[in-house]
Amino acid sequence: MELLKERILRDGRAAEGGVLKVDSFLNHQIDISLLQEIGKEFRRRFPQPEINKILTIEASGIGIAAIAAQYFGNADVVFAKKTRSKNLDGELYTAPVRSYTRGEMFEVQVARRYLTPGDHVLVIDDFLAHGQALKGLMEIIRQSGAHLVGCGIVIEKGFQSGGRQLREQGVNLQSLAIVDSISDGVVSFREEA
Amino acid sequence: MELLKERILRDGRAAEGGVLKVDSFLNHQIDISLLQEIGKEFRRRFPQPEINKILTIEASGIGIAAIAAQYFGNADVVFAKKTRSKNLDGELYTAPVRSYTRGEMFEVQVARRYLTPGDHVLVIDDFLAHGQALKGLMEIIRQSGAHLVGCGIVIEKGFQSGGRQLREQGVNLQSLAIVDSISDGVVSFREEA
Repeated sequence: MELLKERILRDGRAAEGGVLKVDSFLNHQIDISLLQEIGKEFRRRFPQPEINKILTIEASGIGIAAIAAQYFGNADVVFAKKTRSKNLDGELYTAPVRSYTRGEMFEVQVARRYLTPGDHVLVIDDFLAHGQALKGLMEIIRQSGAHLVGCGIVIEKGFQSGGRQLREQGVNLQSLAIVDSISDGVVSFREEA
Repeated sequence: MELLKERILRDGRAAEGGVLKVDSFLNHQIDISLLQEIGKEFRRRFPQPEINKILTIEASGIGIAAIAAQYFGNADVVFAKKTRSKNLDGELYTAPVRSYTRGEMFEVQVARRYLTPGDHVLVIDDFLAHGQALKGLMEIIRQSGAHLVGCGIVIEKGFQSGGRQLREQGVNLQSLAIVDSISDGVVSFREEA
């Protein structure tokens, strides 16, 4: 997605350890006009009319999923939680996730009543690196019996293994920008994305 | 806001201790069509053309703020973080917040570069009870020198003191539904909201 790549080159900041900061437009301050274009692009890549639910994970995924849902006939958004919350009661689906950035394990959690075998689910998130969060969400979808239509990612770190692993498993993974390297502050993209 | 009150009566669930569960449409599963109506209502109540930024706090506020921003000329959204994150670097505004529901203190954090004296800020959040999170966000706005236009809340718990305190301080606080009591599973609203 050219608009996104241009924005990453203009406003992203490459930091040590393969970190790409996009907090000026994606995951701290949010550019709503850009999110609208991202939502339209996800719809273009996932035209399946049966999609009725978008699953994401707190926190940065929520705004992206909410804006995108408008281009999916206002599909319901469900955001998985990372901590036990008083907002969650009743039966839960849970899956363990390793956070590489925080160096710890946590659990993703979704109330069972919001994912059912009749649902056709698109998973959306801001970043894909090792793919741990995405695998947790997919495990929850598997437990629920819902149908996974695909995964839409805003920025994939192509130099980490999550995307390759998921594609090898046959997941319909669509990343709007794939960063193949961050070297000396220079971001390089994979051509096809 | 009648549509919201009807939805709370229909799909909200009153639990022990004055807890109102709205996880089927607001803070776990999200009804995007309802959020659009909420966004329009916030615009009606905050018509000030100078609003250029919407400040909220992770996680449940993000979807509400993102959808609402579309009715404010796609104003930028900034969401405060509750934990130190690798997405946050550089200078931060911070304010301590007491969480009554979790029984602990945490810090709300916003990168300084995203709130400046030229900003006219609308604060949006899903719930107002004791008002601790809101006061933390207002303290951050004060530190930044930005102008606070007002606070838009989806559901205020009128039987807790946050809303009264903020109105007494002269804050332009607009709550779309004010719950005055939750008793034996019955939710009662204040008339004016």
